[in-house]
Amino acid sequence: MRTFKLTIAYDGTAYAGWQRQNGIDTVQGHLEAALGEIEGHAVPIHGAGRTDTGVHALGQVASFKLRHTIESSVLLRALNAKLPRDIRALHAEVTVESFHARYGVCSKAYRYQINRAPVANPIERRFAWHVPEVLDLATMNQAGALLVGEHDFAAFQTATSPEAARSTVRTVFDLCVRSKNDEMIMVDITGNGFLRYMVRTIVGTLVQIGLGRYPVSEMADILGSLTRDRAGPTAPPHGLFLVSVDYPDA
Amino acid sequence: MRTFKLTIAYDGTAYAGWQRQNGIDTVQGHLEAALGEIEGHAVPIHGAGRTDTGVHALGQVASFKLRHTIESSVLLRALNAKLPRDIRALHAEVTVESFHARYGVCSKAYRYQINRAPVANPIERRFAWHVPEVLDLATMNQAGALLVGEHDFAAFQTATSPEAARSTVRTVFDLCVRSKNDEMIMVDITGNGFLRYMVRTIVGTLVQIGLGRYPVSEMADILGSLTRDRAGPTAPPHGLFLVSVDYPDA
Repeated sequence: MRTFKLTIAYDGTAYAGWQRQNGIDTVQGHLEAALGEIEGHAVPIHGAGRTDTGVHALGQVASFKLRHTIESSVLLRALNAKLPRDIRALHAEVTVESFHARYGVCSKAYRYQINRAPVANPIERRFAWHVPEVLDLATMNQAGALLVGEHDFAAFQTATSPEAARSTVRTVFDLCVRSKNDEMIMVDITGNGFLRYMVRTIVGTLVQIGLGRYPVSEMADILGSLTRDRAGPTAPPHGLFLVSVDYPDA
Repeated sequence: MRTFKLTIAYDGTAYAGWQRQNGIDTVQGHLEAALGEIEGHAVPIHGAGRTDTGVHALGQVASFKLRHTIESSVLLRALNAKLPRDIRALHAEVTVESFHARYGVCSKAYRYQINRAPVANPIERRFAWHVPEVLDLATMNQAGALLVGEHDFAAFQTATSPEAARSTVRTVFDLCVRSKNDEMIMVDITGNGFLRYMVRTIVGTLVQIGLGRYPVSEMADILGSLTRDRAGPTAPPHGLFLVSVDYPDA
């Protein structure tokens, strides 16, 4: 059997997230069904990030094994012929047998889009959180810088996180808030891994700081508290994109 | 009665275009219904551009008259509360009584988006034409320059155009093809007016030239032919945006 590495993009609007759930429309479910048709029987796949309901991806990565001798380029076309148009396989390659999309990740990059137009732009309505109030990007970046480095991010995970019993220490490599144009703000975060809802809770907290409701220093206090109660509200899912996942030697 | 100028943005995916049609979902129909609720009886509105089925707008302009003494800012909020989320009223103002959105237009700006990623980006699938083949932007711009100026654009109108019996002379002020990023090409066209399907037929012809199927000089020959048979295929509607409409003293 050969091991494949697949890169996938999706508009998450219509899906109950990445992870397979019986009888529910999920991205993993569609990919496994399409691969199953090609292989002739069920093919389990592993995704790098279990994106939540409504979250999008520009470069999700999945791994799986096939007995079929299909070439990567033919597999890519066959998958896209079977998948719904809001899920696209971007790249397929045969890789080392030991490759597993969920393990050995060097870094993941997420982007969160905030639409700050006075009236929500209808073209971006599925892909950005509408925050029409004035946001101070400088203070948001100062607060974001306090999260860079290795920290226990327990204060930014969901209360019902499956990681609740595991380590909540993660490393954020970079966090940058910038204007894409007059209407759109992008928050780019890279790290070695993220707890469930971590990016959205960080963004929700950054917005409170950008609105002047919390001082910049509050970010350090929240981080140090290690309890979810202190952080700002969780930002809605539709502004979030899993941009890319990097592995060693990739 | 006061005359209002309204600026509107919409995701045209779900609509049979701008123009009111009985029993069919159109942008004008939704706006007139919302205004009718406010005014208490039917309010006819006039749009600057009758965008076709599936075409989007970032800055469509409409005019109408109201007896109601509502303030512009309250009207804007009331409209957005009644309109579907893919149609948004961006700006409302009381203007001179003689203002009519369809007449006296100085210039209109359209944008056409072409997604040139090898696999269609699912996030952009409603807002860009997917052309994965290599396009030569330099030759597209050379050909586009041949259209700038006052010309008879009969060769670029639809065969069933309502303008068939009227003048088909229009002035294109500017036509620019450029890369927005690695994946997206934008064609920006401004002019004093456009025939039905004119932008999409120009884009369809530019793409043929960008693919090397027609020489650059073909654009002048097509323009000179004054018959629709010579131009390239009409580009699909979902890549097209009415960006803005300008009036004197605006």
